[in-house]
Amino acid sequence: MSERRSIVLAERPAGHPTEDNFRLEKGPVPEPGEGEVLARILWLSLDPYMRGRMDAAKSYAAPVELGAVMEGGCVGQVLASNDPRYAQGDYVTGQFGWTSHGVLKGDALRKLDPAKAPLQYALGALGMPGLTAWVGINRILEAKTGETVVISAATGAVGSLAGQLAREKGCRVIGVAGGPKKCAHAESELGYDVCLDHHAAADGQAMADRIAEAAPGGVDCYFENVGGKTLDGVLPNMNVGGRIALCGVIAWYSGANLDDATPLPKVWRTILVNRLRVQGFIIFDHFDQFPHFVDEVAPMLADGRLRYREDVTEGLENAPKAFLSMLEGGNFGKTLVKVAD
Amino acid sequence: MSERRSIVLAERPAGHPTEDNFRLEKGPVPEPGEGEVLARILWLSLDPYMRGRMDAAKSYAAPVELGAVMEGGCVGQVLASNDPRYAQGDYVTGQFGWTSHGVLKGDALRKLDPAKAPLQYALGALGMPGLTAWVGINRILEAKTGETVVISAATGAVGSLAGQLAREKGCRVIGVAGGPKKCAHAESELGYDVCLDHHAAADGQAMADRIAEAAPGGVDCYFENVGGKTLDGVLPNMNVGGRIALCGVIAWYSGANLDDATPLPKVWRTILVNRLRVQGFIIFDHFDQFPHFVDEVAPMLADGRLRYREDVTEGLENAPKAFLSMLEGGNFGKTLVKVAD
Repeated sequence: MSERRSIVLAERPAGHPTEDNFRLEKGPVPEPGEGEVLARILWLSLDPYMRGRMDAAKSYAAPVELGAVMEGGCVGQVLASNDPRYAQGDYVTGQFGWTSHGVLKGDALRKLDPAKAPLQYALGALGMPGLTAWVGINRILEAKTGETVVISAATGAVGSLAGQLAREKGCRVIGVAGGPKKCAHAESELGYDVCLDHHAAADGQAMADRIAEAAPGGVDCYFENVGGKTLDGVLPNMNVGGRIALCGVIAWYSGANLDDATPLPKVWRTILVNRLRVQGFIIFDHFDQFPHFVDEVAPMLADGRLRYREDVTEGLENAPKAFLSMLEGGNFGKTLVKVAD
Repeated sequence: MSERRSIVLAERPAGHPTEDNFRLEKGPVPEPGEGEVLARILWLSLDPYMRGRMDAAKSYAAPVELGAVMEGGCVGQVLASNDPRYAQGDYVTGQFGWTSHGVLKGDALRKLDPAKAPLQYALGALGMPGLTAWVGINRILEAKTGETVVISAATGAVGSLAGQLAREKGCRVIGVAGGPKKCAHAESELGYDVCLDHHAAADGQAMADRIAEAAPGGVDCYFENVGGKTLDGVLPNMNVGGRIALCGVIAWYSGANLDDATPLPKVWRTILVNRLRVQGFIIFDHFDQFPHFVDEVAPMLADGRLRYREDVTEGLENAPKAFLSMLEGGNFGKTLVKVAD
């Protein structure tokens, strides 16, 4: 109990990250300072954005320093508190990082009610990925009944909820995912009208042909999580007045697949001719939507309208391996590490 | 008087168009049919969109057929009318094409009052280019006081008005144009805070450096008329929350400069990290804004707040040469052909 274990950034990746980029460190459990809360971590969330934090270049947030604990959202239980709003035994969520014990200011925490939903939902369907899906469909794409929506990374933490929210709006929903198992799950469990396996499409042209077949009336909205050949395949199928919510480009992280991309002049021409709207968005700008989101989505999860799948790895020491696998598409649902019971 | 002269599309261009792609044809002046109006053409407008109509591929409008009269907006005077709303001698504007005499349905015409503004303004500042500028600044970019706006093709028919409208809104306005003469005009006559000569920038990186110098606080809005290295230079300078109004890509028409473009993955990352909104627009979708636009812009032209420059070529037979020159940036202001007095 008196030892703290953390995963720190040992070195910056050159291209694809490896396990050598991480190091397990042990030390004493920290003491909470004034206004701070010490928590024992139960759940750690693994998310694609963490790849960006490993590079020295600033993206939309500062990089993780070398030797510092990897950034990440957690659910924990309060061990000691110097903030009157939190008592020992309370469950909280906050950005404690990849660690067994973390300290944060009370202002950076949100209290969780274990009776309302499984605690770890705060990292997924009722947390940042869920909010990302909800904002993307409702505020960025403004998807409307009867429209055709394509969701990439269709069974991932964000995509699986985005697809179901679009379906609930009365859209025709086409998923793109990696492998027949994920695609079968998307169609049978998540209610996608059809899910296309990008492993089965040799290139962007093949993907475009398959999307054209799945969306004979064209595509009105594209929830972009991946870039790569899925984007190449969607672009020629976009309808006049279509929208693209640009949420992530996992296929292009770590410098992969860059040379195969559609040339910019062709993309720019498509945007012009079809009067597309391409909108980049980052969920940190939309936290004010959290109450609307929870009000709408929590009941849909509770009554089973929304299905939600987790991909759980046991033990903090296995977080790097689980993270690397997720970047390669090896996860199946929301990626979580169970740090303690 | 009884002969009609027209410029027809003789062959489709392979890459850059040439004068051989056009042919002057002569024939009898047509008779107006039921509900139709015959006009003697006084002014023909030359615009970049016409380049797209020369290709067989459908863009947002059907191509011009081989042997057909080139499409184009005109001002003319009514010679004979079978529509009670138009009388002989009236001045009208409509898409008569590259011709000395044209026939159109009365519904496709707008009557002009020669006392209100020079007739040919209906093809420029008070016509489609002006409306394009106004919609781009107000409806697409939603430029706000204090923001920094970059206008490419800064002295062209659209750009020159877009830049001045942004200035009137209290924006810092940076133009990009080809050559020191245009840039001097942009700064001294059009009120740009600074105008950059893209001929003086070897590549996109050089352009980016010059824009960074001109816009130390970054760029909030970009009125995109050109693509090419100007776009390459603007992108790394875009601020968080920036908007790009994608109106044209003249640098990439005819298949030029395609290989130098910024790779799509880099552009997509910029859109994501800076939460940009890229919106393609085509003016035909926004004709409902015409009354708002005229109400606002006509007084600004009348009292001299807006300057407006025309580049006039005499004689219909010189239209192809003037058009080719415009595509290469050889025009200086709104490109017009004076077809008759």
